[in-house]
Amino acid sequence: MPSGHVPVSARPPEPPLWTLPGGLRVAFERRATPGFAFDLRLPVGSAHDPVGLEGAAGVLEEWLFKGAASRDGTRRDARALQGAFDDLGVRRGGGVGPEATRFSVSGLGADLGAALHLVADVLLRPELPDAELPTLTDLARQDLEGLDDSPTDRLAVEARRAAFPRPHASPFAGFTHPASGTPEGLEALTPAALRAHLSRYGQAGGVLGLVADLDPQAALDAVQEALGELRSGQDDLVPAQFRPGITAHVDDPDAEQTHLSLTAPGVAPAGPHWLTWQLILTALSGGSASRLFHAVREERGLAYAVGASPVLLGGQGFLSVYAGSTPARAPETLEVIGAELARLQRGLTDAEFRRARTGLETGVVFGAESLRGRAGSLTRDVAVFGRVRSLAELRSGLAALTLEGVNDFLAAYEPAAHASIVTLGPVTLGPVTLGPVTLEPGAPALPAPLEAAHA
Amino acid sequence: MPSGHVPVSARPPEPPLWTLPGGLRVAFERRATPGFAFDLRLPVGSAHDPVGLEGAAGVLEEWLFKGAASRDGTRRDARALQGAFDDLGVRRGGGVGPEATRFSVSGLGADLGAALHLVADVLLRPELPDAELPTLTDLARQDLEGLDDSPTDRLAVEARRAAFPRPHASPFAGFTHPASGTPEGLEALTPAALRAHLSRYGQAGGVLGLVADLDPQAALDAVQEALGELRSGQDDLVPAQFRPGITAHVDDPDAEQTHLSLTAPGVAPAGPHWLTWQLILTALSGGSASRLFHAVREERGLAYAVGASPVLLGGQGFLSVYAGSTPARAPETLEVIGAELARLQRGLTDAEFRRARTGLETGVVFGAESLRGRAGSLTRDVAVFGRVRSLAELRSGLAALTLEGVNDFLAAYEPAAHASIVTLGPVTLGPVTLGPVTLEPGAPALPAPLEAAHA
Repeated sequence: MPSGHVPVSARPPEPPLWTLPGGLRVAFERRATPGFAFDLRLPVGSAHDPVGLEGAAGVLEEWLFKGAASRDGTRRDARALQGAFDDLGVRRGGGVGPEATRFSVSGLGADLGAALHLVADVLLRPELPDAELPTLTDLARQDLEGLDDSPTDRLAVEARRAAFPRPHASPFAGFTHPASGTPEGLEALTPAALRAHLSRYGQAGGVLGLVADLDPQAALDAVQEALGELRSGQDDLVPAQFRPGITAHVDDPDAEQTHLSLTAPGVAPAGPHWLTWQLILTALSGGSASRLFHAVREERGLAYAVGASPVLLGGQGFLSVYAGSTPARAPETLEVIGAELARLQRGLTDAEFRRARTGLETGVVFGAESLRGRAGSLTRDVAVFGRVRSLAELRSGLAALTLEGVNDFLAAYEPAAHASIVTLGPVTLGPVTLGPVTLEPGAPALPAPLEAAHA
Repeated sequence: MPSGHVPVSARPPEPPLWTLPGGLRVAFERRATPGFAFDLRLPVGSAHDPVGLEGAAGVLEEWLFKGAASRDGTRRDARALQGAFDDLGVRRGGGVGPEATRFSVSGLGADLGAALHLVADVLLRPELPDAELPTLTDLARQDLEGLDDSPTDRLAVEARRAAFPRPHASPFAGFTHPASGTPEGLEALTPAALRAHLSRYGQAGGVLGLVADLDPQAALDAVQEALGELRSGQDDLVPAQFRPGITAHVDDPDAEQTHLSLTAPGVAPAGPHWLTWQLILTALSGGSASRLFHAVREERGLAYAVGASPVLLGGQGFLSVYAGSTPARAPETLEVIGAELARLQRGLTDAEFRRARTGLETGVVFGAESLRGRAGSLTRDVAVFGRVRSLAELRSGLAALTLEGVNDFLAAYEPAAHASIVTLGPVTLGPVTLGPVTLEPGAPALPAPLEAAHA
C-alpha cells in the first residue's frame, strides 16, 4: 500500500492480525509509548440474555470481579482481586453492551503481562461467591430505578425496544431491555444459571486489540500465554429486526421536556456504502454548520440538543436521531427533523460534501491518537469489518469519495419514509407529518411486550 | 531538571511560557504530530455574571458565534462563520464554566493559523445581531427546564448554591446559578448589557495552551498575529466563601432515587499539600479497591454510583462526594460516607499509599497523551498553578511523597466535621450522624436565596 502521501509524522506499520489456536483474534499495533492499552471484546452482550433471565450478562460481569484465583491456584476475594488491579495502577474500562462484553485495561508497559493475566483469571478462575449475588442483583435493580430519573436514558431504552422487537422464536432476549435487565429477569437469576451462561464467554468470535511498545512476536506471546487457554465459548449473532413506521409515546407526566427519538434504516458496515453514509451523517449532524443543528437549533431554537448518530446492531447500521424539546415545540421539532431527512434525497452541495470529508479526515487523525482509543478501534474494526482498517486505507477511502457518488446514493435513501419514532414527555403528540409520511399519534404508553403500540 | 530517570520514549522539551505584550500568557509544547490543539481560557465565567443578569456569560458565548467579520472586514453571518470553522475540519470545544470561558479548537497542523484567526474574529469582530438574542435566551430557558429532568445535574447546581452562597456586597452573581442563568436573569438580559459584558473578555488573566509541530518562535508568531490585538479585558477573582455545616433537602416527589451531595474543605492548588491531597482522593475514590467504592457499593450495595472528586473554586480546593441511592438506604449511605471521611484521620495503609501513587503515576502518562488533553492541561496549569508543571516534575513530585507525610497531613484533616450536605429525592432524611457531627434534617426545599435553609 502506498504511504508517501500520508502526512503522518510517525505512521505505524500495518497492524498484524493473528488468530490464536483457540480462535481468539488478536490485532496489534506497535507504538513508541510508555504505556499499553488492550480491549478484549467477547461477543456476549445483553441481547444474548436468555429469555426470562434479562440482566444475566450485566450481573455476571459484576460477579466475575468478586474474586478470582491466580494461575498458580492462589485464591483472591473481591477486595484482593481489585487490589491486584489497582496495585498495577491500571485503568479498567469496558462493560456490557447489547452485543458484546468488553474488558479494557490500560497502564504502564511493564505491567501488560500482569494485566492480561488478571483478565484471564477473571474469565477462567472466578470465585463466583453465591453470597454476593443478592447485592449485585440489587444494584442492578437500583440502576433500573435510576432510569426513571433520567428521561434521555429511559427514552434510549424504549426507542430500541420499539424499533427492535424480539422475534418470538428466538431464545435470546434481544434488544428490548437495558444491560441491567428487567425486574422479573433479575428475580429469576440463579447462581447455576449464571455459571452456565459463563460458558458462552470464550475465544469464538472474540477479539483483542492491543497497543504497546513491543516486538510483535513478544506481544503475541504475552497474549497467548495469558489467554491461550480461554475456553471456546459461543459466537451467536442476535439478528436485529427493525420495525419501521412505529410511533409510540412514553408518558412521563412529571417531565418538563419532551424527548424525541427517531430510528431509521442506515447502511451495513460490511457493504460498499459505509464511508458514503458516514459522510452523509457528518453533513447531517457533524458540526455547527450541519443541517440538523442549523435547522432545529440555530435557525428555529426548537431544541437545546439535537443530533444524529449511527447505531450498529445485528451487523446492520441504523440512523438514530435524538432531540430534547419542549412539549409545545415537539411537533414542529419532529417535522423539521423529518423534512431534513427527506431533503437528503436531493443531495448535498459541493461545500457540504467537502466540509464533511474534511471533518472525517481530521477525525481519522485524532481517533488514532490515544492508546485506549486505538486499542478500541483495532477491536471494533475486527469485530465489525473482519479486519483492521489502516489509517492510510481510511484516508484513501475518504479521498476516493465524490459528490456524485454520494448524491447517487442519496437519491435512493429515504430514511424518513421508514422511520420509527418514540417520544417521552408529559403529553402525547398529535399526528406527525414526516416528509412524505403522516404518522398517527402513538399509544399513551409503551406496553411490554410492545407489539400493541403499532401505529 | 534531570530527565534520565523518566522512561518516556519521546519526552517533549520543557514547555515555554510566554506573555504577549497585551498580557495573554501562552504555553506551548512542540510535538511530532499531524494535528494541533489549542485551549484559550479567559477568566470570565458564570460567576462573573452581574447580579440580576444571571446567564450573561452563557448567552454571550452563544451570541459571539452568531456571525463575525474577518480581519479584512468581510462580514459573515452565523452560517458563514460556522461554515468557516467546519471548512477547516476542526473540532470546537470549550464553553462557559463557573470561573472562565474556554475556546478550544483542534485540527490538522496546516489550519492552525486560520483557526486562531477565527477565534480572534469571534472575540474581536462579532456581529452580535439583536434579532438572535430571543432565540438564545429561549434556548437557555430550555436548558434550565431540562435540569428538572436530570436530578444529578440539578443536585450539582443546588449543592454549589448551598455551599457557596453569594456574599451580599459582591457585584458578581457568584456560584449560585448554572451557566444557563436563572429565568429572571435571562429576562433582564439586553443587547446593551451583553455588549458591555464583552469588554471583560480579553488578555488580562487569559491563557492559551497550544500543542503543535512547530518551531516555538513560529508558534508564538502565529498566536501574536491572531490574538495580539485582543483587548485588555478584566481579571477578577470571585471568592468562594464555603459555608460548612449545612444540610438541605430538595424535594422531588417524582424521583425514584435519592441523590446525595457532600461538599467539604480540601486543599488549595497553590499550597504545599496539593499532590498529597490528590493521593488521598485517589485512595478514597480512585479505583475499584478505593475506600468509598468498596464500603458503599461493593460491601453494602447501598448505591449504584458513588465517588469523590476535587472541585476548584476561587483559588481553593474542595472535596465533593456524590452518591445515587434509594430513599430507604440514603441515611445509611450518608453515614457510611461520613464514617469513611472520618476514618481518613487515622491514615492510609502502606498498600493504599503505594496503590494510589501508582494510579496517579499512570494518570500522568495517559493524561499527557492526547493533543486536546495536553493543550487543556497546559492552560489549566498556568491558570491554576501560574506555570506549566512538566511531566518530569509531576513524576518526581509523586516519587517524593511518603506514607508518613500523607498520614501527618491526614491527622489534621477532618472533612466530615466541616461538610455541607444537600439531598434530592422524594423524602427528607432524618438527622444524619456524620463522623463526630450530627446534622439536623434539612428544610423541605431550598428557597432562593438559600439563607433560610441553615441547619
